Amino acid sequence: MPAETVAVIGLGSMGLGMARSLLRSGARVAGCDIDAGAVSRLREAGGDAATDPAAAADGAGVALIVVVNAAQTEAVLFGERGAAAAMPAGGVVVSSATMSPQDARALAARCEAAGLHYLDAPMSGGATRAAEGALTIMASGTPAAFARARPVLAAIAGTVYELGDEAGIGASFKIVNQLLAGVHIAAACEAITLAKRLGLDIARVYEVITASAGNSWMFENRIPHVLDGDYTPRSAVDIFTKDLGIVSDIGRQHKFPMPIAASAMQMFLMTAAAGMGRDDDASVARLIAQVTGLDLPGVTPAPGSR
Amino acid sequence: MPAETVAVIGLGSMGLGMARSLLRSGARVAGCDIDAGAVSRLREAGGDAATDPAAAADGAGVALIVVVNAAQTEAVLFGERGAAAAMPAGGVVVSSATMSPQDARALAARCEAAGLHYLDAPMSGGATRAAEGALTIMASGTPAAFARARPVLAAIAGTVYELGDEAGIGASFKIVNQLLAGVHIAAACEAITLAKRLGLDIARVYEVITASAGNSWMFENRIPHVLDGDYTPRSAVDIFTKDLGIVSDIGRQHKFPMPIAASAMQMFLMTAAAGMGRDDDASVARLIAQVTGLDLPGVTPAPGSR
Repeated sequence: MPAETVAVIGLGSMGLGMARSLLRSGARVAGCDIDAGAVSRLREAGGDAATDPAAAADGAGVALIVVVNAAQTEAVLFGERGAAAAMPAGGVVVSSATMSPQDARALAARCEAAGLHYLDAPMSGGATRAAEGALTIMASGTPAAFARARPVLAAIAGTVYELGDEAGIGASFKIVNQLLAGVHIAAACEAITLAKRLGLDIARVYEVITASAGNSWMFENRIPHVLDGDYTPRSAVDIFTKDLGIVSDIGRQHKFPMPIAASAMQMFLMTAAAGMGRDDDASVARLIAQVTGLDLPGVTPAPGSR
Repeated sequence: MPAETVAVIGLGSMGLGMARSLLRSGARVAGCDIDAGAVSRLREAGGDAATDPAAAADGAGVALIVVVNAAQTEAVLFGERGAAAAMPAGGVVVSSATMSPQDARALAARCEAAGLHYLDAPMSGGATRAAEGALTIMASGTPAAFARARPVLAAIAGTVYELGDEAGIGASFKIVNQLLAGVHIAAACEAITLAKRLGLDIARVYEVITASAGNSWMFENRIPHVLDGDYTPRSAVDIFTKDLGIVSDIGRQHKFPMPIAASAMQMFLMTAAAGMGRDDDASVARLIAQVTGLDLPGVTPAPGSR
């Protein structure tokens, strides 16, 4: 990649992984985060620590916004010491948070009014893929936004889908993906706990299902956490209460019923309500085991259950 | 396979496919079905047409029972002119229907009391795999039942999981698979219709999702039916009202809540109620499109919708 300064706003595990991929590709990276520890990890990796979004974006042709939702994206772009006013005209804002298509369109309009390009570019793949430069990006935006952002996307992604020429399309694809991902995690947890309740060897169930028509990407990826009883968050329950919440909002807005997604959201909400919102999203299995008194690895059944 | 007479009771597309695989392997096959057309297709394939289960099983060391549920399995084994009384002692009954573990155990006990072995051997893979001898079988039963059935299973299956030494275990694995399969079909239909509602190119959605974390075996397999508007039954809606019905029965019996499976069952029931029970199970997408007034291939929106 030609010498370029890229601002990375938000240095959680995703943002830091992207920053590392960019540094490897030869870019200069200026980053900021409200967590000072995250900022010092960026500095150790060879990036420039900035005190706030405006400082990070000062002189940057591309700003990657790696925060969790539309409200945070708006705040780091247009709030006090926001990135938008600090970027040179003609720069491109690459927005990665999962949000509604409506929010993506609104943010694009504000950026364009400020003389910036906007790429609606939600990502999937998790922290490991981010660190490897192997994310999948579902992007839409104007040809000018793509032209400006493409070298940066190439440094952080294994696959970039160019899905259309206006903001909102990338967001819509990501929402459809998250609906399926959330349902599949909750269903995987329901199925593996049923298997345990029926007295099956759940490691064998994993082996058989992953080779059968009942398999899903999420079953294959998350059930090992249940088998190991390891609920260290790779991706947290709260991510899915948020993303299925967006699905729910869209459903009401468009008068479009989605009963399966609604059931899955309730299971994530129930798991968060039981105190596991920041734990791994496979914790839905732990919730079911606690409630039903199942002896699953890493689970203490609730007193009095079964 | 050594010369062996195998009875195939039930000659729908699955049973007929198995019969063909057995004939190719050198076995003699005697089959019966209540549909005379199915029996003549067996005769054309080189099998012996029998008038009823007793006639098919007369002298057969192995009987494959390829009917849809526990009640039919019981009827063809123990009803009037049933297979069990006609089989030589020491023969093995291989039961393929999806049923509750309890039903599988009860049928095994009756077979054993009649001097027969019983293999609890539900199958997955559909008619195409059956015809290719490439089914997946989730089997459990006594070592003697396996020893007797193994050469026959090898002729019809690509993969045979030997899951335990008593009936009910195979049934339990299949139920767990069907819970996931049913939820994944209903979720796939919900997601692809949402994508259409959001104005996305659904062929592109298929391409992106099948390469993303939202993918499932069922999404990949069934959504092409929706894209083509082709609801010719490869597997019917009524199969999932039945199989998720068994999941629901098991849940109540074991006091084990399964809200995601319950939602999916309601979607299949709604699709069957709208007259599509015998159509392809991807018809859940057609139901959603009809109700919400979506312009999906092969769908006529209900008058007055949207």
